[in-house]
Amino acid sequence: MNLPRKVTIIEVGPRDGFQNEHIFIPTDQKIRIIDALSETGLARMEATSFVHPKAIPNLADAADVMTRIRKKEGVLYEALIPNLKGAERALQAGVKNVKLVISVSEAHNKSNVNMSVADSLNNMEEIARLAKAHGMRITGGLAMVFGCPWEGKVPVSKIEAIIARLLEVGAEDISLGDTSGMGDPAYVSETLNHFVDLIEAGKLSLHFHNTRGTGLANVLAGMEAGVTMFDASIGGLGGCPFSPGATGNIATEDLVHMLQAMGIATGIDLPRLIEVAKTVQEVIGRPLPSSMVKAGPVPWSIRK
Amino acid sequence: MNLPRKVTIIEVGPRDGFQNEHIFIPTDQKIRIIDALSETGLARMEATSFVHPKAIPNLADAADVMTRIRKKEGVLYEALIPNLKGAERALQAGVKNVKLVISVSEAHNKSNVNMSVADSLNNMEEIARLAKAHGMRITGGLAMVFGCPWEGKVPVSKIEAIIARLLEVGAEDISLGDTSGMGDPAYVSETLNHFVDLIEAGKLSLHFHNTRGTGLANVLAGMEAGVTMFDASIGGLGGCPFSPGATGNIATEDLVHMLQAMGIATGIDLPRLIEVAKTVQEVIGRPLPSSMVKAGPVPWSIRK
Repeated sequence: MNLPRKVTIIEVGPRDGFQNEHIFIPTDQKIRIIDALSETGLARMEATSFVHPKAIPNLADAADVMTRIRKKEGVLYEALIPNLKGAERALQAGVKNVKLVISVSEAHNKSNVNMSVADSLNNMEEIARLAKAHGMRITGGLAMVFGCPWEGKVPVSKIEAIIARLLEVGAEDISLGDTSGMGDPAYVSETLNHFVDLIEAGKLSLHFHNTRGTGLANVLAGMEAGVTMFDASIGGLGGCPFSPGATGNIATEDLVHMLQAMGIATGIDLPRLIEVAKTVQEVIGRPLPSSMVKAGPVPWSIRK
Repeated sequence: MNLPRKVTIIEVGPRDGFQNEHIFIPTDQKIRIIDALSETGLARMEATSFVHPKAIPNLADAADVMTRIRKKEGVLYEALIPNLKGAERALQAGVKNVKLVISVSEAHNKSNVNMSVADSLNNMEEIARLAKAHGMRITGGLAMVFGCPWEGKVPVSKIEAIIARLLEVGAEDISLGDTSGMGDPAYVSETLNHFVDLIEAGKLSLHFHNTRGTGLANVLAGMEAGVTMFDASIGGLGGCPFSPGATGNIATEDLVHMLQAMGIATGIDLPRLIEVAKTVQEVIGRPLPSSMVKAGPVPWSIRK
């Protein structure tokens, strides 16, 4: 197997996880969890989303969260920005790294932001201009890349065109999301092989859900295709509120465990990370789909 | 990725699953489930174990199950045989295919059958002699191949010696079990690479537990190493009663789903298989760790 020596984990629980909780998580608890995550050795984290508070009430405190978290040296804190208004709010809150997400599925993009993909791309160009004018770092995000509940497999040519456009407007890296958890290792492998001439694998990150149990197998396929950045969510928090049946990102601690057991460095203190997952479970008040919380790590996975 | 076109699934739920249930499952229900599984297109199934009824009360009806199930043409029905007494009972019940299992971990073998691995091997030779004298087909099974909670990583040389001995006494194929769910894709890949000169990959089957979420990723690593037979358990039933924290085989329907979505044939009618998983869940009376029961299959996985 052709595997990397080192992988970067992007923690998305505070954004993709918290946005799906029906009961408001107090801002202090969010900050406590993000600060605890910052101490595990994670290099990158989606901390919140500057989405309209009515659309996602749980993230209405985005500005508060972004200004009050203890920003650890060496950690890249990102915020998701869905529109120009959100970008302005992020700017005011001193956000330095923004993530602009678009769905490759017309149906999903419509249900998400009530716009066609073409209109969203134009919209995104405007946000990117503002972001760049203020020196923000931009990540481009694509949703529904590995299957859509409404449209099935979205053609790779369409995905390629969106990646190309995001790179044009200044995205420094690109996140490919299996929003509906419909991906499988062959699908991941074949899709990534299409992009080799368009973007270097080192600029891609993969975002998998474990909806159909294939999350970690998809990570393996992604690594074999040369990708070294993966999203994951502490405790397995999350899903997508507009995507039927899409329950659960891959749990960060389960991913870190597998990688470190395989001898792939993540720079993360696994026992400490598992403690944070337990804290999140307490805050959320229900069991989370974390293997590590239930079964614990194998001894040879405990390394940095 | 180097993947097979076709994979054989060995259903182990009626043995590895039922043996772990604390409440006795009525014989008629067991037979109903096995018969339903026989109609899904499965080619092979572990139907029960002729273990001492006091050790595993739920399988005290082994003889009854083996004689009363509707044996479908083309399906290989196996029974696990732990000792000579079990072999004699299986013989009386007309069993034609037996599985002889030994743990590669001294500590686990001791807790399982109260014998050293060497004594178990001698014992197994005696059982194999009886089985062959009566024309039975023998499968050899190794437990704790990918990590032991007490002994850590068991040396490959020890595993090789046990495989060689099982082949010598007449085993036609060999099952390698990740009994404790401690395996990861790199561990699987490296271990299998050691056996290339000893046994052809087509004679190996792999038995993974999803205890730490790596079950399907391990299957992927196994396929890339040339293996084309995999154990799985309907609904994700099972675990090992003597192995702490070892909860859950990979669910057959989740494995079949991933493979068929990848374009790998299994010969199994997936919607029908998911219906059986739902029946098992009703019989057991608690939710099982099946992604398919919760989220359903992707449309392109529905093929034979």
